[in-house]
Amino acid sequence: MKIQDIKSPADIKGLGIDELTALCGDLRKVFLQKVSTHGGHVGPNLGLVEATVALHYVFDTPKDKIVFDVSHQTYIHKMLTGRVDAFLNPEKYDDVTGYTNPGESEYDLFTIGHTSTAVSLAGGIAKGRDLLGEQYNVVALVGDGSLSGGEAFEGLDEGATLNSNFIVIVNDNEMSIAENHGGLYGNLGALRASDGKASDNYFTALGYDYLYVGAGNDIAELIKAFESVKDSQKPVVVHIHTDKGHGYAPAEQHKEQFHFSAPFDLATGEVKGGDYEDYTDIFAEEMLRQIKADPKVCVLTAGTPGAIGFSPERRKEAGRQFIDVGIAEQEAVAMASGIAKAGARPCFGVVSSFIQRAYDQLSQDVAINAQSVVLNIFYGSVMGMTDVTHLGWFDIALISNIPGWVYLAPATVEEYLAMQRWAMAQTEHSVAIRMPGGPVLHSSEPVQTDYSDLNKFKLVRRGRGVALIGAGSMLSVAEKAADILTEKGVNVTVINPRYLSGLDRDMLEELRQDHQQVITLEDGVLDGGFGEKVARYYGPSDMKVRCLGVEKKFLDRYSPSQLLEASGLTPNAVAALIK
Amino acid sequence: MKIQDIKSPADIKGLGIDELTALCGDLRKVFLQKVSTHGGHVGPNLGLVEATVALHYVFDTPKDKIVFDVSHQTYIHKMLTGRVDAFLNPEKYDDVTGYTNPGESEYDLFTIGHTSTAVSLAGGIAKGRDLLGEQYNVVALVGDGSLSGGEAFEGLDEGATLNSNFIVIVNDNEMSIAENHGGLYGNLGALRASDGKASDNYFTALGYDYLYVGAGNDIAELIKAFESVKDSQKPVVVHIHTDKGHGYAPAEQHKEQFHFSAPFDLATGEVKGGDYEDYTDIFAEEMLRQIKADPKVCVLTAGTPGAIGFSPERRKEAGRQFIDVGIAEQEAVAMASGIAKAGARPCFGVVSSFIQRAYDQLSQDVAINAQSVVLNIFYGSVMGMTDVTHLGWFDIALISNIPGWVYLAPATVEEYLAMQRWAMAQTEHSVAIRMPGGPVLHSSEPVQTDYSDLNKFKLVRRGRGVALIGAGSMLSVAEKAADILTEKGVNVTVINPRYLSGLDRDMLEELRQDHQQVITLEDGVLDGGFGEKVARYYGPSDMKVRCLGVEKKFLDRYSPSQLLEASGLTPNAVAALIK
Repeated sequence: MKIQDIKSPADIKGLGIDELTALCGDLRKVFLQKVSTHGGHVGPNLGLVEATVALHYVFDTPKDKIVFDVSHQTYIHKMLTGRVDAFLNPEKYDDVTGYTNPGESEYDLFTIGHTSTAVSLAGGIAKGRDLLGEQYNVVALVGDGSLSGGEAFEGLDEGATLNSNFIVIVNDNEMSIAENHGGLYGNLGALRASDGKASDNYFTALGYDYLYVGAGNDIAELIKAFESVKDSQKPVVVHIHTDKGHGYAPAEQHKEQFHFSAPFDLATGEVKGGDYEDYTDIFAEEMLRQIKADPKVCVLTAGTPGAIGFSPERRKEAGRQFIDVGIAEQEAVAMASGIAKAGARPCFGVVSSFIQRAYDQLSQDVAINAQSVVLNIFYGSVMGMTDVTHLGWFDIALISNIPGWVYLAPATVEEYLAMQRWAMAQTEHSVAIRMPGGPVLHSSEPVQTDYSDLNKFKLVRRGRGVALIGAGSMLSVAEKAADILTEKGVNVTVINPRYLSGLDRDMLEELRQDHQQVITLEDGVLDGGFGEKVARYYGPSDMKVRCLGVEKKFLDRYSPSQLLEASGLTPNAVAALIK
Repeated sequence: MKIQDIKSPADIKGLGIDELTALCGDLRKVFLQKVSTHGGHVGPNLGLVEATVALHYVFDTPKDKIVFDVSHQTYIHKMLTGRVDAFLNPEKYDDVTGYTNPGESEYDLFTIGHTSTAVSLAGGIAKGRDLLGEQYNVVALVGDGSLSGGEAFEGLDEGATLNSNFIVIVNDNEMSIAENHGGLYGNLGALRASDGKASDNYFTALGYDYLYVGAGNDIAELIKAFESVKDSQKPVVVHIHTDKGHGYAPAEQHKEQFHFSAPFDLATGEVKGGDYEDYTDIFAEEMLRQIKADPKVCVLTAGTPGAIGFSPERRKEAGRQFIDVGIAEQEAVAMASGIAKAGARPCFGVVSSFIQRAYDQLSQDVAINAQSVVLNIFYGSVMGMTDVTHLGWFDIALISNIPGWVYLAPATVEEYLAMQRWAMAQTEHSVAIRMPGGPVLHSSEPVQTDYSDLNKFKLVRRGRGVALIGAGSMLSVAEKAADILTEKGVNVTVINPRYLSGLDRDMLEELRQDHQQVITLEDGVLDGGFGEKVARYYGPSDMKVRCLGVEKKFLDRYSPSQLLEASGLTPNAVAALIK
């Protein structure tokens, strides 16, 4: 079977074990060729080659439904379901996304990019199937790392009560993005060590039938297991032990590094591209400094230490003051509240798109209790996360509208460090800091060290007629627009609001003396965002307000710079607004 | 020991078992006297009298820390920790809230009202304690019903990895608010049936030591158990089997009804107060009708069937088309997406304060996937939920700023029914409907049946100069204000926006012809809300905009009508704004 001839899973149904094994080798080769030049999720896909082939060999997709958790492990699935050209032909590499996508294929059920959702989604399909009286297999494939998320537990708990076909495949590669954390992983370890026979069993405790497959990269074993549960009329867990990075030595050895990788040298595994200053390093270095200076300081991550600059070496350096709760943002936020209550100083570093998973905890566990938790919110887009499931534009509306949270937007490294040091030293407020996006900028002047006088905007330059209020990274756009206008003899005011969660009413009121227009700039969604608060404030007055920001909609694999341009968030576009 | 003499837990430390038993009887009597005249959580407190006394007998609070999940079971705890007057003296009944409250007492660690948070919060305290090198017991008390929430799982999973004192007491009364749902409850049942010896054990699977106490209302047994785990240097679960409603026959027999009760006749258990038309009944009757007419229709609840009108009788009538996922809002939303994907028609009925727990699922599992899930969002305040942990003002900012969600605000029963029927019949949009608050109002004219032409506001009456845009329940305030003005010879425009998630730009533009001012009215927080979108729209124009709504802050046990008044949301106050 030649890979380029696979048009649908039907094409692999007639193959023998040897042919399937050879196919797996070919798929791996094509996959590695693409990711090494294009970048992408490496280890998760390599580990799942055999299981993906076995799934499509045994089940009758698209009639049978397979929901892949996170779905970053579906590159092989895409090759088997009519999209192999996007892996063979470099010009077509970007024809497919890195996640399942119903827009691409009927074999993809959902657009998924956050973890821990597949069991719930698949459970819903099974429930809907039963309501309609239809018959097909529903399969959720979920990684061990995703099981730490509360939604995965809720899905398992509810799914166990289905009195019908429901197959959960637990892809246990002994890794989350980094190492796993949580009591559950002791149980998975015991199950692996006992060939599935350990007396404690998380899955049977929840009511599932249970089947263990130790040889999770053995196509024959997998086919046997999947065939044994196909058409099962009750919920069953198939626990397969796979090898993350299987078949590519660098990925087998450096599992965390190769979870997701930029383009790399296929022969050596060396990642291409150079070093550059970025906020993950700035954050990690600052927090390591604080950790060493104060045993009360701790940093939390919810399963993404690398995304906040905490490499294995830095984690070791931080010791017990670095806490990875697993992929469990609710826990990270609530636990941070408890840590603060006990008198220690927690900082949770989290990517914007993932803080969405903890809205209620931000409100109930932290803000209502006025606990001095500190959050550092990282832009996903800076790290190349521009998929629709990883957009980083919603955090202003999410955080700044919850009472009690002080949401700060530094514009430069120095301002960030000053805000972070203030936030960690104080114990009055719940403080979130929005790490700047775009290039790392520096302040030319000393920055304020104390931010306890809330909602005091900074007047960067005083002009008249028009004031530009540029939040965070957008301050530099405002300043450059002002420079352009200065050259034309127009002197506008530039303001760094610093606070996204409240207004400096004194300054806004003062502007009314000699300004007719205020323009707000934010690199976030306009709806519910910062600019609208300014528009509401000036609503009853003569002041004209124009809000620049991102439109409320889902974009997929967008260009951040093009998005800013399309949103009018460039110096030239802003300057052009002013006659 | 006389109850009125208990100033702190120290006062019960010297008592013998007989005295403690007698004390429990007295506490129960005083408790019943108060709740029967005042209303409150009945069953949860009755079941936990002995355990609360035993906890304070064994542990040394406030040095030792006890975090109560949901904390609606802490009335007895309050009596033992210096607040007994608030139970003995009717004039002081309202001196204490119905939940733990650090503002009342150092024995209360957090303000808690949502379920499933205690294990995470307590785990954080334990972690903070360890960072600071301190020594004390940390106890989380969590009900069986709360264990279905993902945050509780995340807390248990992480807590199991603490290499230090961490005691989780599982208060298993075989009930959530209503009956339990989920595979986990099979395991709890097996553990109860086997005196804790069942081979499957959810807690040991997560890595906890485990102790079972079958006689959870026997003070001597409880003391023995708690003493055996006090100062434990590793995480341990004490699973106690208690009797919800224990010691009061009506509450033992009608466990769901007496979970929370309005004032009732102590002798008979009859609830005082009469019948009145409300949206929970309107919703349940409409959905029962739809369920009978179409096997594809189903209603979901996350553990609060009573709060959406689904009494045990109605649940029985709905059969398998009524799905209670347990207290698990993430699951309810994600599962609904799967159900819609499979071709059935799900409607999740949920109280405003609890939808906060599923922001990420609303965005990722539903909206990005454009699944035609329907939500009905109920005002908590209508049901008497005015505690700071149950505020219902944040849902406009929460839902309307997520792309893809159509958030509708009906003003009357007829409009609600029309919107709900449209929402359930269509399959294009994810639709949330904000159930009106305040008194149930009826339309005097026929209402529109099709809402697929999105964001079309309804012109209720056309005046000039000033337009009042009244969202949902606030439409009647706008209309009454207009009536007052008409009497004074001023004819203003009144608009029912119907959509909270988008603007009718045509209508807003048209208003500019002969209007100088627009006033928006919403019974939600202004920040991130509906009015700000109107203010942003008109920002660059001459139109004056004033947004009326609720200030962004946490209020506790507020009066909804006083809040509206203080926010200027009364006909007179609105009319007075117009010169």
